[in-house]
Amino acid sequence: MSIKNIDIEGVIRAIQPADAVWTEKARQRTAQLVMPPRALGRLHEIAERLCGMRRSLSPRVDRKAVLVMAGDHGVVAEGVSAFPQEVTGAMVGTFLAGGAGINAIARHVGAEVQVVDMGIIPELDRASLPAGGRLQVCKVGRGTANFAQGPAMSREQAEQAVLAGFRMAGSLFDDGVELLGTGDMGIGNTTASAAIGAVITGCTLEDMVGPGTGIDREGVHRKCETIRRAIAINKPDARDGLEVLARLGGFEIGGIAGCILAGAYYQRPVVVDGFISTAGALIAHLLCPATIDYLFAGHCSEEPGHRLMLRHLELPPILNLGLRLGEGTGGALAMNVIDCSVKVLTEVMTFAEAGVAQGQ
Amino acid sequence: MSIKNIDIEGVIRAIQPADAVWTEKARQRTAQLVMPPRALGRLHEIAERLCGMRRSLSPRVDRKAVLVMAGDHGVVAEGVSAFPQEVTGAMVGTFLAGGAGINAIARHVGAEVQVVDMGIIPELDRASLPAGGRLQVCKVGRGTANFAQGPAMSREQAEQAVLAGFRMAGSLFDDGVELLGTGDMGIGNTTASAAIGAVITGCTLEDMVGPGTGIDREGVHRKCETIRRAIAINKPDARDGLEVLARLGGFEIGGIAGCILAGAYYQRPVVVDGFISTAGALIAHLLCPATIDYLFAGHCSEEPGHRLMLRHLELPPILNLGLRLGEGTGGALAMNVIDCSVKVLTEVMTFAEAGVAQGQ
Repeated sequence: MSIKNIDIEGVIRAIQPADAVWTEKARQRTAQLVMPPRALGRLHEIAERLCGMRRSLSPRVDRKAVLVMAGDHGVVAEGVSAFPQEVTGAMVGTFLAGGAGINAIARHVGAEVQVVDMGIIPELDRASLPAGGRLQVCKVGRGTANFAQGPAMSREQAEQAVLAGFRMAGSLFDDGVELLGTGDMGIGNTTASAAIGAVITGCTLEDMVGPGTGIDREGVHRKCETIRRAIAINKPDARDGLEVLARLGGFEIGGIAGCILAGAYYQRPVVVDGFISTAGALIAHLLCPATIDYLFAGHCSEEPGHRLMLRHLELPPILNLGLRLGEGTGGALAMNVIDCSVKVLTEVMTFAEAGVAQGQ
Repeated sequence: MSIKNIDIEGVIRAIQPADAVWTEKARQRTAQLVMPPRALGRLHEIAERLCGMRRSLSPRVDRKAVLVMAGDHGVVAEGVSAFPQEVTGAMVGTFLAGGAGINAIARHVGAEVQVVDMGIIPELDRASLPAGGRLQVCKVGRGTANFAQGPAMSREQAEQAVLAGFRMAGSLFDDGVELLGTGDMGIGNTTASAAIGAVITGCTLEDMVGPGTGIDREGVHRKCETIRRAIAINKPDARDGLEVLARLGGFEIGGIAGCILAGAYYQRPVVVDGFISTAGALIAHLLCPATIDYLFAGHCSEEPGHRLMLRHLELPPILNLGLRLGEGTGGALAMNVIDCSVKVLTEVMTFAEAGVAQGQ
């Protein structure tokens, strides 16, 4: 079936777990490297997971890309964010101009950045956009509805968002991308993500809701109460990923879930960034638990609920640098470590090659 | 004074702390970047420290090098290591052949590797060495004496080791290196480092002594008792860095302390690796506390005493990946994050440049 016509059920049916035989072969290779047993810790584990994903002892991660998914959120009307809603569209312009945090970090790690309008409010005038950037338009709507008053979107829109993310990532993989990072932009999206996180992990809102871009204590309290009301009104079924997405939003979170499905479908590694990307991973995991086999957690965010989401997914973060920006920044920076892990596995000599005596 | 004739006192007198005015200027720049306040956490802090070291808002860290200091340890006679002593020399050969962990990681981050014989037992035959590698010979002795029975070296040898490291690093800085990593190789050197760590930090041996390259519980106990005996015999004055180094060793640890003095003298950043490099930092810090202004801790090692050393120096580690190899590997990998931090400071647009509204 062409991926153009595939539906979510078709994607899920086609997904296979990572191959434990290749992971084990990689562990055997690690044991031969001229160093004390597993002396490079997480680097070995990361490389071995890659071998299991790619069914290869020399998985390539040279071609890297970050998909920055942007969407607006009706819940901003409840006063849950430190920034005005028009910042979403303005930041999309900044991404395209190459001037945001993700642009600097993606250049540093050698990843291309693609920006996707999953559903921001403005209709960006392509003619006026900076020449350097690339904008993909997959608008599912002009911002979600305010989920404090009803569903953020319809179930059909939720499916459309996930499939758009799947196709966008799929087209990058078809084009040769070997390591994909997910990123987000959307004023209000820590509110949607905290709601998704609380419903899926079962953690309390007090533990899951944080300051996002920087609201004060009173603001966090208001955000918490807004989400409590929203969950009471929407009553999402915590076992149904598309329903959770439809009721709580947002379009970019659906797109990110689709990217993660694509990683598993194409058997290529995906690195999630922080709180919003991991909310997307929670949705993808509900849709198909095996997707997690193809996923790395780039870092642990300062947003307090993030570590609870990662614990739920049993994904240990690679970096812990107090980041809380989003955009894909933490995932992109972690690509460097992932890249390095492969070089350790493939470039370091064995004890035999080096002629060095093995230990006790 | 030419650095060829300088003595340790002269180096220490010339060292100035980092410049807080430049650190503050960098903080002001960070506050303008088009993102929520300090949303890239440690990356901002790292970049601002670099600005304070280099007295510049665009500190360059493109030219990178790792000095891998090798030395042998007489204390190996006490059965404290999982590997035989000849592995030190064999690994020096592996570094020169480009086949060790540090070679793969240094290539990954774009750092050149220089290997220094600070005092290994074998006299390596240059003619038989691999053509690719570069070996610097600064042999202070053919291995230290067994410090369980008396001083590891004389005070003159300790000075000689520190000055050799200072000159080696200084010559790299003169040559244009902008970011230096320290590395080590020496069977038995976690024993010397744990002894140095316990004496300088005041922590107990039970907390400071770990498995090193991989001895079992009984081995750790024997290592602990060996160090206890050694400290009782040597009675080092914990306020005198050269005395601690002379009594407990080793030559490569003295060389690393010299590299750290050179960073502060040249006002260039140095990244320490794990347990052994940080033992060198403890010595350098005793000799001149301001050296720490120019130092980054690349990572926190699995060797349990490492975090205690870092806490003593008030240096938060950049990475936490369960590494315990040494060779400079964790410091080299962290260079990538340091590099990225500068790009965030210098390449990301300001709110004004991007035309984006600032938050509350």
